[in-house]
Amino acid sequence: MAETPRTVRELGEFGLIARMNAGRAQGSNVVVGPGDDAAVIAAPAGRYVVTTDMLVQDRHFRLDWSSPRDIGAKAVAQNAADVVAMGAEPSAFVVSLACPPDTAVEFVDGLVEGLWAEARRAGGSIAGGDVVSAPLLIVSVTAFGDPLRPPVLRSGAQPGDILAVAGRLGWSAAGLAVLSAGLDPAAYPEVVAAHRLPRPPYESVRNLPRGTVVTAMTDVSDGLLADTGHVAESSGVAIDLDPDAVRDPALTPVAERLDADPLAWSLAGGEDHAFAATFPGGQPLPPGWTQVGRVTDGTGVTVGGRAWSGPVGWESFAGGG
Amino acid sequence: MAETPRTVRELGEFGLIARMNAGRAQGSNVVVGPGDDAAVIAAPAGRYVVTTDMLVQDRHFRLDWSSPRDIGAKAVAQNAADVVAMGAEPSAFVVSLACPPDTAVEFVDGLVEGLWAEARRAGGSIAGGDVVSAPLLIVSVTAFGDPLRPPVLRSGAQPGDILAVAGRLGWSAAGLAVLSAGLDPAAYPEVVAAHRLPRPPYESVRNLPRGTVVTAMTDVSDGLLADTGHVAESSGVAIDLDPDAVRDPALTPVAERLDADPLAWSLAGGEDHAFAATFPGGQPLPPGWTQVGRVTDGTGVTVGGRAWSGPVGWESFAGGG
Repeated sequence: MAETPRTVRELGEFGLIARMNAGRAQGSNVVVGPGDDAAVIAAPAGRYVVTTDMLVQDRHFRLDWSSPRDIGAKAVAQNAADVVAMGAEPSAFVVSLACPPDTAVEFVDGLVEGLWAEARRAGGSIAGGDVVSAPLLIVSVTAFGDPLRPPVLRSGAQPGDILAVAGRLGWSAAGLAVLSAGLDPAAYPEVVAAHRLPRPPYESVRNLPRGTVVTAMTDVSDGLLADTGHVAESSGVAIDLDPDAVRDPALTPVAERLDADPLAWSLAGGEDHAFAATFPGGQPLPPGWTQVGRVTDGTGVTVGGRAWSGPVGWESFAGGG
Repeated sequence: MAETPRTVRELGEFGLIARMNAGRAQGSNVVVGPGDDAAVIAAPAGRYVVTTDMLVQDRHFRLDWSSPRDIGAKAVAQNAADVVAMGAEPSAFVVSLACPPDTAVEFVDGLVEGLWAEARRAGGSIAGGDVVSAPLLIVSVTAFGDPLRPPVLRSGAQPGDILAVAGRLGWSAAGLAVLSAGLDPAAYPEVVAAHRLPRPPYESVRNLPRGTVVTAMTDVSDGLLADTGHVAESSGVAIDLDPDAVRDPALTPVAERLDADPLAWSLAGGEDHAFAATFPGGQPLPPGWTQVGRVTDGTGVTVGGRAWSGPVGWESFAGGG
């Protein structure tokens, strides 16, 4: 009798694919799921939203800081957040996974659990993918969505709009700082959890009251300053952020312990996958949204009317990595 | 005046993205292209085909054997072939690129040229993507297509059908053997070119005469034996391959030089991205297609009525890589 396979090499490519798909029910919009040359997805609106993001070991996650389940869930969450930020409903995902042949089967099991758990939370299923060998772990996710409304672009913000956020800002950066400083993660469980597994507040977009006007929207993946900077540039406007509204008092204890500025985390920290949107000034803010700034004539992003002199957010090729 | 950036690090993430998209016109089915949280693609048939494949440096290509342009084109070609093998027309692609920060800007320029050239050849455009830092080069492509007919699955082959192929078999494997043996590539330019840059014969599927019945179809990416094995298994049939029809006399000289079996290359070599399809026995073969076997009752794939004892094709986690 064959021994139970312990590694991806022992399981083999097709055994691995079968294991990844075993017992998984596809969403109703997946017409043809895994197992053929390609999947077929329904597009009832006659168009679909697409985004893709790649996570690289030791660049976007560390195996000693995140569980396999966290890594899988995070890979899906950051893609689903982009779909939702376009005003669309996530429908399906495809995932390419590269890993060393000696990767434990249990590791892949955990990763797949995380992929599926977050896909379900976002409203979709994993409709296909690819598995390949590589010297390090790489997870590449492409996410699809059905537009619920005309696409909400970054380019529609207008002077007089208010800027509001749904979700937390700076928690992931605070958690990363705790882990980087070698502090006990158990002493700061909430921010460490926020770093390991972002929870985009999909429902705050999904539940926008019918008729709500959203002039621009984005997810906050590179940091509030960077991402609202893209909105300002695309829309040809200026945005002023209110530091008292952006600063999160919940981060004060951990910031004091690390002698850090919690406002910098909330302004420049990426990966929280909150949503930032601009709404016409006269319109009541929808549930779950908090005003953090105003849109004016001009260019660029300021904080309390002044230029920000601290760090400005994530850049893929910075940091020597 | 700033010096011209020479590396990806000097150019920066957003400079790189701008450079990748500069002057590129999107296809008519791309409603919203690069530059927002997500792209929006038209799906006039109300459904779309999706496939994804990841290429890893030193596993799927070598920088000393392939030009950046070849690598980009190959990444798109193998995905486009999967779309076409479903009976769909390629419409758009998204590409995630991971590379070391010291990658030369000219290298990425070449890669992007290749991505776009093959996307155009297949009938689509590059609608978005992601760029990240990693210690080695990884290209992950997701391809989309519009179904021209009901999806042609691997599961529809029936006893009495004939198996036919469009495109070349074993040329890529022969080219890889030439490069692996350290022979002068210039002495065997055609097979080396076939390895560096597969040319799926999209037109042989696209130009199938109206009314042609195709019971099953796949692209040959893992080798004819392996891929027709998937058809046999999915369809619950047996397939017998005709060795005299599969063997390509054009490979004889290079096989003799390497003391290799050209039939093994044509049976087990992957990456040619030919198309294999089954057609009802009484139907004339469409232009560009050559009969290479027959579908019968039973299970498994045989060669000339006998089990094949040579290599059986590509497996992602084999070979210690």
